[in-house]
Amino acid sequence: MNIQLALDRMTIPEAVRMARTVHDYVDWIEVGTSLIKEFGMESIRAIKREFPDKVIVADMKTFDNAKYEFELCFKAGADVATVMGAASPITVNTCIETAEAFGTTVMIDLLHTSLEQQAAILQYNQAVPCLHVSKDEQEHTGSMLQGRNPAGANALPEGQRFAMAGGITQKSLPGLLKFKPFILIIGSAITNAADPRQAAFEIRQVMNEFKERRVYE
Amino acid sequence: MNIQLALDRMTIPEAVRMARTVHDYVDWIEVGTSLIKEFGMESIRAIKREFPDKVIVADMKTFDNAKYEFELCFKAGADVATVMGAASPITVNTCIETAEAFGTTVMIDLLHTSLEQQAAILQYNQAVPCLHVSKDEQEHTGSMLQGRNPAGANALPEGQRFAMAGGITQKSLPGLLKFKPFILIIGSAITNAADPRQAAFEIRQVMNEFKERRVYE
Repeated sequence: MNIQLALDRMTIPEAVRMARTVHDYVDWIEVGTSLIKEFGMESIRAIKREFPDKVIVADMKTFDNAKYEFELCFKAGADVATVMGAASPITVNTCIETAEAFGTTVMIDLLHTSLEQQAAILQYNQAVPCLHVSKDEQEHTGSMLQGRNPAGANALPEGQRFAMAGGITQKSLPGLLKFKPFILIIGSAITNAADPRQAAFEIRQVMNEFKERRVYE
Repeated sequence: MNIQLALDRMTIPEAVRMARTVHDYVDWIEVGTSLIKEFGMESIRAIKREFPDKVIVADMKTFDNAKYEFELCFKAGADVATVMGAASPITVNTCIETAEAFGTTVMIDLLHTSLEQQAAILQYNQAVPCLHVSKDEQEHTGSMLQGRNPAGANALPEGQRFAMAGGITQKSLPGLLKFKPFILIIGSAITNAADPRQAAFEIRQVMNEFKERRVYE
């Protein structure tokens, strides 16, 4: 289990400062879509320059022009890039092929995908599907990724690596850990906390306690 | 009927030069998704600075974080921004509301949408739906937007303003004009032509001849 810190709605210097503040407690660092669209590939280059040993995720949310977009972000230093599962299968497939050529990883965002699309996506077992409650849903309906029955989780085959994202907090974390996600994507619960380093520390602690309990159970 | 010049897979200075070369023959200028993801909002600011009187389209391809992303591009100078029709209805609706607040226009990209999604999208009659064959489909299957039966065109209600995009050339143009699109989005047929100004001139001429024929018929 890994924590992916999502950096969104901030400037590049703010993103670098935030990542410096909490990097001890996170595994992967995500350059959010909002940073990419506001500042371009420089956002990825800046984070990779500062954290060459971290796994850097480019939340490209690619929907078309897959080879070009994925080459852009891998050349800028990304180790992982996202494509929308709702895109054409040709686009998803091109992302997989491009990542293979670079020795990098594709994260497939399941946001607003049909069951049929999810089934097709799970064929790519080298990729990491991401169960995702969107920011817009969170802000308009208060919906967060919850432990009871996160959309799509039940469809995942045993042993499939996957990510979870969408308003995850210290409070919702324990309910999600039992699904054994490979990646927990956490943004504002850290970046908007009064003390981001403390928040990241606490989230890491909850995760570590969960892992230890599982060892001694 | 208007021509939207799509600028993709180039640097900002190349985009500015291209737009300068052909601006006499095009109506709207689109800052393509690839420019936005590579160079951020500076790509939109640069084109708007150079062409303050043209309608500037930001091909944001928004899928989430709608208010934030749309505010970004409208503040950078965009007059029109795109959202994916495959996104959550909450996201599409937030785009519509944000554009209303700015007095701008939403283009809804129908790429890989279901018939059900298309029907919901057509409720927004102040927006411009875009019938779209993706770059990835063009490159992998040779599929282009053709005159016979462009996906979704038949579902459009009479009088609905809409755009068409996807590998449109001088050759495929006449077959598409009969659908009376409000916007024809043309990229590589102009930007990759040996003589882009001549190509844009010829496309404009085909369109003008079509209009005249309709007047005198």
